[in-house]
Amino acid sequence: MMTSTTSFNEKLNWIQTQSESMLCVGLDPDLERLPASLPKNAVGVAHFCENIIQSTKDHVCAYKINSAFFEALGVEGFDLLGDIRELIPENILTIYDVKRGDIGNTAKHYARAAFRALNMDAVTINPYMGYDAVEPFIQDPERGVFILGLTSNPGSQDFQQLMLDSDDRLYIHVIKKAAEWNTQNNVGLVVGATKAEAFGEIRRLIHDMPILAPGVGAQGGDIEKILQAGLTEQKTGLIIPISRAIIFASDQDDFAEKAGTAAKEFKDKINRIN
Amino acid sequence: MMTSTTSFNEKLNWIQTQSESMLCVGLDPDLERLPASLPKNAVGVAHFCENIIQSTKDHVCAYKINSAFFEALGVEGFDLLGDIRELIPENILTIYDVKRGDIGNTAKHYARAAFRALNMDAVTINPYMGYDAVEPFIQDPERGVFILGLTSNPGSQDFQQLMLDSDDRLYIHVIKKAAEWNTQNNVGLVVGATKAEAFGEIRRLIHDMPILAPGVGAQGGDIEKILQAGLTEQKTGLIIPISRAIIFASDQDDFAEKAGTAAKEFKDKINRIN
Repeated sequence: MMTSTTSFNEKLNWIQTQSESMLCVGLDPDLERLPASLPKNAVGVAHFCENIIQSTKDHVCAYKINSAFFEALGVEGFDLLGDIRELIPENILTIYDVKRGDIGNTAKHYARAAFRALNMDAVTINPYMGYDAVEPFIQDPERGVFILGLTSNPGSQDFQQLMLDSDDRLYIHVIKKAAEWNTQNNVGLVVGATKAEAFGEIRRLIHDMPILAPGVGAQGGDIEKILQAGLTEQKTGLIIPISRAIIFASDQDDFAEKAGTAAKEFKDKINRIN
Repeated sequence: MMTSTTSFNEKLNWIQTQSESMLCVGLDPDLERLPASLPKNAVGVAHFCENIIQSTKDHVCAYKINSAFFEALGVEGFDLLGDIRELIPENILTIYDVKRGDIGNTAKHYARAAFRALNMDAVTINPYMGYDAVEPFIQDPERGVFILGLTSNPGSQDFQQLMLDSDDRLYIHVIKKAAEWNTQNNVGLVVGATKAEAFGEIRRLIHDMPILAPGVGAQGGDIEKILQAGLTEQKTGLIIPISRAIIFASDQDDFAEKAGTAAKEFKDKINRIN
């Protein structure tokens, strides 16, 4: 049983043990990819997400909720964001994927939006603006942050991979800072699964901090390689979010059933390798 | 008269000429700082913003709408964000200060949220994830983006000011890339007014691209110095957003009147120096 002072990273470990899963389903409800029978609006998205959660919840440790796909629906989307968050069972973590980064007083209000208004367990953070953009999010040890380190997309080479005069690449410097900021055991990193070759060095730098590793599935990241290089000695410390390959496993009326099957297969595949 | 194919940066110049103002009022409606007579909720914020817009609209070229202070109110805040945007007259630009940055397909949906759902004229963008995080926002030449270069906060030294092995600081490299991406004349930079010493070099690098320069007022940036170093030869290219020093000029029931007076004073001060 967890006490009320459990840190986010401890809670994550506990939930991954209980659920026997490192899988996180990414809720990216793209209107254009909803099954044909659903209306292409907030009502359709609500129905879609509700059924996806119902069919996948036994196979995951977390849901990653991508704010963009809700915000694109306008005011109704924001309503829906709150409703969908409420549908996620208490024993599963919610990661609000919104990539925040702003100066202190503004960041404080974004933290309120994520943790109070929406009651998310964790949030993704963009490090470009430095420590005061991160600090309001890490004050409560029970709430987690995942700081962008090395992302899965092509644009990660534009800035993240630049070499500094200290002989570190920028993302390595960011990751070292994130490790310094992890004084309450509630900080993790985002490292793209498409960058498997970077996981070994990152794991050595961050000890047992968690890595959220998007890019498996549609983007082609290799589960086996990131598990081999990215797990801690205790075989923990990775969350594997998969979105499109699960939620759009079928574009027919069996979408929820197929999503459940795909989630179970990914969970089992991860556990076999691990 | 502007045609329908006017680029954002041209439109900005035109509106600054018409309004005879480089001033942008920042709408950061912090609940804790609302006048005592207003309720500390979305109704109070609505009343506050409506009166601030009414009393300042003759003195500004733009409003900068800070999403955090609306999102912190929860679902009602998002409703309000749309309502407040609608209150801004057509001849004044709206800059949605939300500092987005995410991979291509997600960025496309954030662009929809900003430009279609909310009909904002421009948006602030975080460059850390590179070109594919920016590209969906710059496709429409009539909509503008302001890319974070060197920000006004203490944390700007954590990463932005790091020296690269190419002998540029990171923010200079970001600014050079932003200039490359400005093929449709709709890209600008965010450079903190607290960093006046950097404006001269940045202006040489970006020619006549606009700079949004927050940090005047509560953060202590020096208007005179940034105008001297940051304006183009044609005395254009700067937008000076001021928030707290205008919208909280009084914490009494005369808040709107005092905001109007403060806005006029800042506008006149800028025009005297310029």
